[in-house]
Amino acid sequence: MIVVQEQDHVAQPAREAIELPAVLHALSDPVRLRIVAALAATEEQPACGAFDLPVTKSTCTHHFKVLREAGVISQRQRGTARLNSLRRADLDARFPGLLDSVLRAA
Amino acid sequence: MIVVQEQDHVAQPAREAIELPAVLHALSDPVRLRIVAALAATEEQPACGAFDLPVTKSTCTHHFKVLREAGVISQRQRGTARLNSLRRADLDARFPGLLDSVLRAA
Repeated sequence: MIVVQEQDHVAQPAREAIELPAVLHALSDPVRLRIVAALAATEEQPACGAFDLPVTKSTCTHHFKVLREAGVISQRQRGTARLNSLRRADLDARFPGLLDSVLRAA
Repeated sequence: MIVVQEQDHVAQPAREAIELPAVLHALSDPVRLRIVAALAATEEQPACGAFDLPVTKSTCTHHFKVLREAGVISQRQRGTARLNSLRRADLDARFPGLLDSVLRAA
């Protein structure tokens, strides 16, 4: 996997290394779909703790890791917090229409 | 899971019981993506053996089962063969644009 480190970004695949099966797998979990829908609905970069999710903190951390490693979200380190954002431009460039159709259906 | 039995159809979820996470999971495997792309490209209902896939017969059978149980494909029993078809109308009705965006990207 090609990995890019930018400033304070946690390691993530470059745009061209984002693979469809990994993205679909990352989106195939109801909790991760809720995270993605919440990120799509905000201009902010909420930390993991800002999400109201029915799972433990370690499970939550795992879900964000799966999303980041698949290329669905970016995480920036700010002190002890990780700020999350959707990689909408990268996903739209790689898989036109996919994210929108998933968000409409979620 | 709501299950419908029609004529010689192998059990599958009704349209309204098709769930997004299960569909995304079914599509999150490269071999299953190849199967779906092949079914999308034909008017026929090919049997499992007609697909040129780099997996054993039992793995192949497993992949078709995952696709059927998620509501992505239908299977009809014809003697000892199972004929496969994509549930395009059901998927398009439940998740508009999703299948097309996946097929474009696959």
